[in-house]
Amino acid sequence: MVYSEDSLSARIREAAREINLFSQSSKVISYPQNGLPDRSKIISVTEQLRSVMFPGYFDTPSSEHNEYAAGYKLTRIADELGAQMYSALCASNDPGVAKEKSRSAIESFIKRLPEVQKLLATDVEALFNGDPAAQSVVDVIFSYPGLNAITVYRLAHELYILNMPLIPRMMTEYAHSQTGIDINAGAKIGSYFFIDHGTGVVIGETTEIGDYVKLYQGVTLGALSTRKGQLLTGIKRHPTLGNRVTVYSGASILGGDTVIGDDCLIGSNAFVTASVPANTRVSMSGLELSFRQNNPGIWENG
Amino acid sequence: MVYSEDSLSARIREAAREINLFSQSSKVISYPQNGLPDRSKIISVTEQLRSVMFPGYFDTPSSEHNEYAAGYKLTRIADELGAQMYSALCASNDPGVAKEKSRSAIESFIKRLPEVQKLLATDVEALFNGDPAAQSVVDVIFSYPGLNAITVYRLAHELYILNMPLIPRMMTEYAHSQTGIDINAGAKIGSYFFIDHGTGVVIGETTEIGDYVKLYQGVTLGALSTRKGQLLTGIKRHPTLGNRVTVYSGASILGGDTVIGDDCLIGSNAFVTASVPANTRVSMSGLELSFRQNNPGIWENG
Amino acid sequence: MVYSEDSLSARIREAAREINLFSQSSKVISYPQNGLPDRSKIISVTEQLRSVMFPGYFDTPSSEHNEYAAGYKLTRIADELGAQMYSALCASNDPGVAKEKSRSAIESFIKRLPEVQKLLATDVEALFNGDPAAQSVVDVIFSYPGLNAITVYRLAHELYILNMPLIPRMMTEYAHSQTGIDINAGAKIGSYFFIDHGTGVVIGETTEIGDYVKLYQGVTLGALSTRKGQLLTGIKRHPTLGNRVTVYSGASILGGDTVIGDDCLIGSNAFVTASVPANTRVSMSGLELSFRQNNPGIWENG
Amino acid sequence: MVYSEDSLSARIREAAREINLFSQSSKVISYPQNGLPDRSKIISVTEQLRSVMFPGYFDTPSSEHNEYAAGYKLTRIADELGAQMYSALCASNDPGVAKEKSRSAIESFIKRLPEVQKLLATDVEALFNGDPAAQSVVDVIFSYPGLNAITVYRLAHELYILNMPLIPRMMTEYAHSQTGIDINAGAKIGSYFFIDHGTGVVIGETTEIGDYVKLYQGVTLGALSTRKGQLLTGIKRHPTLGNRVTVYSGASILGGDTVIGDDCLIGSNAFVTASVPANTRVSMSGLELSFRQNNPGIWENG
Amino acid sequence: MVYSEDSLSARIREAAREINLFSQSSKVISYPQNGLPDRSKIISVTEQLRSVMFPGYFDTPSSEHNEYAAGYKLTRIADELGAQMYSALCASNDPGVAKEKSRSAIESFIKRLPEVQKLLATDVEALFNGDPAAQSVVDVIFSYPGLNAITVYRLAHELYILNMPLIPRMMTEYAHSQTGIDINAGAKIGSYFFIDHGTGVVIGETTEIGDYVKLYQGVTLGALSTRKGQLLTGIKRHPTLGNRVTVYSGASILGGDTVIGDDCLIGSNAFVTASVPANTRVSMSGLELSFRQNNPGIWENG
Amino acid sequence: MVYSEDSLSARIREAAREINLFSQSSKVISYPQNGLPDRSKIISVTEQLRSVMFPGYFDTPSSEHNEYAAGYKLTRIADELGAQMYSALCASNDPGVAKEKSRSAIESFIKRLPEVQKLLATDVEALFNGDPAAQSVVDVIFSYPGLNAITVYRLAHELYILNMPLIPRMMTEYAHSQTGIDINAGAKIGSYFFIDHGTGVVIGETTEIGDYVKLYQGVTLGALSTRKGQLLTGIKRHPTLGNRVTVYSGASILGGDTVIGDDCLIGSNAFVTASVPANTRVSMSGLELSFRQNNPGIWENG
Repeated sequence: MVYSEDSLSARIREAAREINLFSQSSKVISYPQNGLPDRSKIISVTEQLRSVMFPGYFDTPSSEHNEYAAGYKLTRIADELGAQMYSALCASNDPGVAKEKSRSAIESFIKRLPEVQKLLATDVEALFNGDPAAQSVVDVIFSYPGLNAITVYRLAHELYILNMPLIPRMMTEYAHSQTGIDINAGAKIGSYFFIDHGTGVVIGETTEIGDYVKLYQGVTLGALSTRKGQLLTGIKRHPTLGNRVTVYSGASILGGDTVIGDDCLIGSNAFVTASVPANTRVSMSGLELSFRQNNPGIWENG
Repeated sequence: MVYSEDSLSARIREAAREINLFSQSSKVISYPQNGLPDRSKIISVTEQLRSVMFPGYFDTPSSEHNEYAAGYKLTRIADELGAQMYSALCASNDPGVAKEKSRSAIESFIKRLPEVQKLLATDVEALFNGDPAAQSVVDVIFSYPGLNAITVYRLAHELYILNMPLIPRMMTEYAHSQTGIDINAGAKIGSYFFIDHGTGVVIGETTEIGDYVKLYQGVTLGALSTRKGQLLTGIKRHPTLGNRVTVYSGASILGGDTVIGDDCLIGSNAFVTASVPANTRVSMSGLELSFRQNNPGIWENG
Repeated sequence: MVYSEDSLSARIREAAREINLFSQSSKVISYPQNGLPDRSKIISVTEQLRSVMFPGYFDTPSSEHNEYAAGYKLTRIADELGAQMYSALCASNDPGVAKEKSRSAIESFIKRLPEVQKLLATDVEALFNGDPAAQSVVDVIFSYPGLNAITVYRLAHELYILNMPLIPRMMTEYAHSQTGIDINAGAKIGSYFFIDHGTGVVIGETTEIGDYVKLYQGVTLGALSTRKGQLLTGIKRHPTLGNRVTVYSGASILGGDTVIGDDCLIGSNAFVTASVPANTRVSMSGLELSFRQNNPGIWENG
Repeated sequence: MVYSEDSLSARIREAAREINLFSQSSKVISYPQNGLPDRSKIISVTEQLRSVMFPGYFDTPSSEHNEYAAGYKLTRIADELGAQMYSALCASNDPGVAKEKSRSAIESFIKRLPEVQKLLATDVEALFNGDPAAQSVVDVIFSYPGLNAITVYRLAHELYILNMPLIPRMMTEYAHSQTGIDINAGAKIGSYFFIDHGTGVVIGETTEIGDYVKLYQGVTLGALSTRKGQLLTGIKRHPTLGNRVTVYSGASILGGDTVIGDDCLIGSNAFVTASVPANTRVSMSGLELSFRQNNPGIWENG
Repeated sequence: MVYSEDSLSARIREAAREINLFSQSSKVISYPQNGLPDRSKIISVTEQLRSVMFPGYFDTPSSEHNEYAAGYKLTRIADELGAQMYSALCASNDPGVAKEKSRSAIESFIKRLPEVQKLLATDVEALFNGDPAAQSVVDVIFSYPGLNAITVYRLAHELYILNMPLIPRMMTEYAHSQTGIDINAGAKIGSYFFIDHGTGVVIGETTEIGDYVKLYQGVTLGALSTRKGQLLTGIKRHPTLGNRVTVYSGASILGGDTVIGDDCLIGSNAFVTASVPANTRVSMSGLELSFRQNNPGIWENG
Repeated sequence: MVYSEDSLSARIREAAREINLFSQSSKVISYPQNGLPDRSKIISVTEQLRSVMFPGYFDTPSSEHNEYAAGYKLTRIADELGAQMYSALCASNDPGVAKEKSRSAIESFIKRLPEVQKLLATDVEALFNGDPAAQSVVDVIFSYPGLNAITVYRLAHELYILNMPLIPRMMTEYAHSQTGIDINAGAKIGSYFFIDHGTGVVIGETTEIGDYVKLYQGVTLGALSTRKGQLLTGIKRHPTLGNRVTVYSGASILGGDTVIGDDCLIGSNAFVTASVPANTRVSMSGLELSFRQNNPGIWENG
């Protein structure tokens, strides 16, 4: 009914003209001439990769765990991800170079997948062993957001290593959106990695994490605050955690020079900006709870 | 174009072979012979159940709130959820037993649904009354992630009580993924339950919560830290909250022996690991803010 | 197979009858006679609006950034959103009035869109400049949950200003579900707004935020605790932040009278309930970490 | 890649302008201001009606044949078809009148459905009894295009009787597209109607058919040739068939005054333009086959 | 809006009650207790089979013609078609027997597929060679309805031979609906089979056809007319065609004793009910066209 | 359950191996290395073109008939159809040449569309005027299979003229599948073209048809029979019809030298293989119907 109303039509015409003009001219919004990866295809490839890593759990079970499934799916993935890689590389490469690089990258990526799967099996084991609420490894594979985020991170990390632009972040942000767990694809993470609940976990780009490490919800492995922005690109800004470190919920460990030694436990809500030697427990002290009669006080709005 | 490239084909062949081998042999990744529930079907049933609980809001409105809708939908749910229950039970039961148990469980579950709906109506009321930003109960039903998470929890809890494996967790993790609120289906939660914003809320498996309780974003009702993992399965590890307890954002209440009495208020970011008597306000003290001139300091990276 | 089982059929019949009865009679659950907006359509319109704001990134690229796309999409949006506005307004207005109001509102909304797009371009710039992990503005537009949440907020805010019921909240909760960032459509937020990682961020309805402000994950700009609920509707309950304020992860700034002056930095996990003058750094003190030998202690369960 | 090519952009601009101009000005192509039914919705309603007529066969079986399914589906159908009726009536009625007429029509239509179902049961029986290749009534309901076409015709006919514009034809053409059987919704057809194979069957608007009639593929019950077109609207132009008439493949029976008496058999490819008394067999004579040596002749091209 | 209108609600209630009652009691319409195949699944399996027969043409090309595709797809087909076979067999078999028979049938069926593919390759060749309008074999595989119908027939025929109930007909009627070509799965058809245009072709259940046979649109290979219906089940009712027979458009060859010898040509619209020796051309004679001045006559209505 | 059965697995392995081998080696089935058009994309483009030709009828009405719709859709069509053209041309052209040809072809095609739309408006008019059962032009646009087939033919014909391989036939076969009307894209057809009912109509590649021509169901405009197959490619094999010719149902007009003069009427089932002068009526004579007592005879199977 709308199209016959003159003033609305006029509004649309003006808005369309102005939006189109700005979209073409703005340096931050204009879509590049030589194209970009397609977000929905990246998500689809990510889901296919997950079903290759855990055959039977995330697709038609009967046909997933025989001798053909992995080959069939990898062929599709090679084709679809290869095309997205080409698009991602075209932004900063000549088409011929982009083609060569994407061909080489997809080969290297496929080659690494069996290793990634084996690492993921250690993560499943860690999650099952570490959580008394886990009924079985099946429970972990189907339902644990920690495993979901780690799976996508481990796949995206392989692309990050290959210097693939845009795509690793698109993958990890897809997992972030589903789980609330934000692991930058650049982080280096050892085997038997455990994240429980996970909402609010942030693991920065230059973080390094050893084996058998456990993180709970709300943990930040971040950079020290800074206003330097893009000037810090490429510099180690996030902490290093040794083996068998456990970080409880809400704790923050910040800074590129901060090293947490093997077998440390970092308590809930701890705020750590300096290195900690191995075998140390860190908790907050100087912090007490005050108990009062239950009547209005400063933190209640009158 | 990919299939004619020899080296890529070879990579795919090798990776497929290795992945298939590992998928068959790995104890943690191999898909069980007798099948498992189907995650997409569990999600679909969960959505159907939501639309039975709040007729008209989450499906074609006109046909939802007459005398046929609930009956029609419950018949479908009984069939579809019953089949998933059977699959879930087959993992640890003889097929005949699984059939018997699933038949009995679906009956018990359906029977409980009217009671669940009445509880949910108290939650809607609590959310509306408790949040000045809520315009109407409709606003709450359509948009509040707290209600979304509570709805799925209350439904999953009924299955948990029936000792149904895998499915309750699949349901609550679906809600966790949408809301950032992680309520274990094992928790016991009274009426008029209120969660606002909710991102990062964690409520552990053996938590007990009274009536008229309010939680804000980032609250953890968790276990004390432990490395015992699976050894603690079945033991009460999470706290007990009385009636009319309010827990503000970011607070953690931990431990199976921790009991928060009726009418307590737990302040933001409080970290409570011991019981608190009724009518007590708990806040952090010994914590002050330092105010400084705005120049670089230890928490800013140079 | 289910329909031949007498006891299950009986259970379904009883449950359906009881649920139907309650759904009709309950004041909090009954679906209103004159209808409501359709949640799936609000989501669809929100996605269409995003693709108008960032032409090429979220739809078929080739046809998105020419002279027709914005006009074509705005015509559809005007029609579909206009119909939803009408439904939303019918709840508290006579149909004739609802029609008049929705017609006027859609015009005003369309007229504002070019301005919203220009604001969003400043947000993209702020995110790129502020995060060393951002490879390019494309990276930000495709993958940053902060931008996703801000985009939906800026659009929903325009509807909030027009006093549109229900819809603004439906839109921002859609973004909340995807990003873990909960920005109430009522908040007033300046240009060059930056949220990184973002999970757990809460920005309340009456918050005011200046230009060039940066927030990190888990920041709450909230109300002081209260049990007054609906009595506070319309009253300023949330803080005011000046220009160039940065709030690090996990900090809470609470209260309607709390004003954070220009160029302040609020440190991680700070808990601010009073005003802070311009050019001030606020961090927690009186809080120390205790370091101990790694053996069991109070925060480990036996 | 296309948008940067100047000559193509110019072609698009010119074509779009010309097409838009013509679409607005052409009397035959311009879309009416007050809207029209939506073809995809008519198809959807038709499928829903089919699943009400044959519960269990064309939808989720378990929930289809209990006491709720018909009520639930009829409620949806009433709502969706009622809305389409309103749109169809608006073309030639004042909105108020259209609303009144559509309300009354949907009631009358729903009331007739049980009778339609009973008629369809006679058709199933006729098809099963009449075709030695039919294995069972299930075979007929699932697979016989004749039943598909008759079902849609019987439903559309009820709307035709109610003088509903546009919709009956949209329904029967949907069936025509699927089956190659073109039954005008205006035709009057008795019980136990049988069409086998059916491709190419045409049954005109003013045809009348008795009970137990059988038609085979390619049968036309049509009008005598004419160039009068619209001048003949409303006049009986198609034949009348008595009870127990059988018409074999490819036969044509034409003309509004042509009456085929009870128990007639019309042979394959017969061309009948005059009435035939009861109990008569009509076949072609004067037609012989010539048998020749197999060498090229007039009907072979060189 | 509909649910508040009393008379419409009453109509729905009455109609639903009556329809439900009839659906339960009618012998021809009631859905069998032990279930039936699912029509949409049969269609899906048919499409998967087509993509196995012609790898690359009807699915994602790149992953279709390597060593994994056929294996992967056959595994799925075995699972899905096996389940449908089981349902189809349950109608007339004990569950245990149905399971055994379906297991055996799916094995036999899979074993025959390579042979079916080789036959289909002969059909493609025949269609290309026989039609001057065919540009290439690709043109034939993509676009020729004749090949579509023959493909589905050849697959369904293998199931017919295995005495599978219901499913073969569901498959061929799916092809009939798409092509207007109705080939009963029981027919026996040699290699290099050619059908051009094809609309209206009917090939009955007991037809036998040699190699290199060509049929054009509207050809019927049918039964002599009969009113015996189900009494004729299992008896040869349709003709036998030798090798290299060509039947032009609209011709009918009828009767179980009718044998058309090798190398015959049957002319357009010929009506053949008796056997024809080899090397014979059959055309209609005694049929002439009359040419008249162009003024109204008996076959024009006034 | 299937994958654990050894004999079935063996069958699948053998069948997959054999099918894969044959698919690679068979000249008629092997998928070409350099790719082909994608059938589902051709169908999608065809539907988009239809919605450009009849704005409002086949898509979201409100946004279809303003100034942006045609431009927006043509941009998409240019991009998507252009890509398919490139694939189609690659089969017989060097990539560079294919790119050049497809670029030029899409421009020429877009340029012709306004003219095609104007022709289609004449067809709508002819259909409405010629059929007393047509209620309105809307009825014709929504429901007449004749118009559906003619629309797709007119679009495909433009591509045929541009020597585009494969695509024109894919388009017309899509329409053939929906309507039973098979118009080869090569035919030349004048304005005001009318096909009613249409099932079984065949119009060959080298047919020429004047203005105001009317065809009814089952009409063949075909080639004389021949066994020459591919040898006749490019030769005129189908008839020429003048202006205002009407051909009634089931008639066949065959042969490249057959010319039907202006204003002729060809009667039902006529079989015409020679030219007919203008203003002539052609009907069958020498054909009588025999009327008999209704008892069994030669055309009834005893």
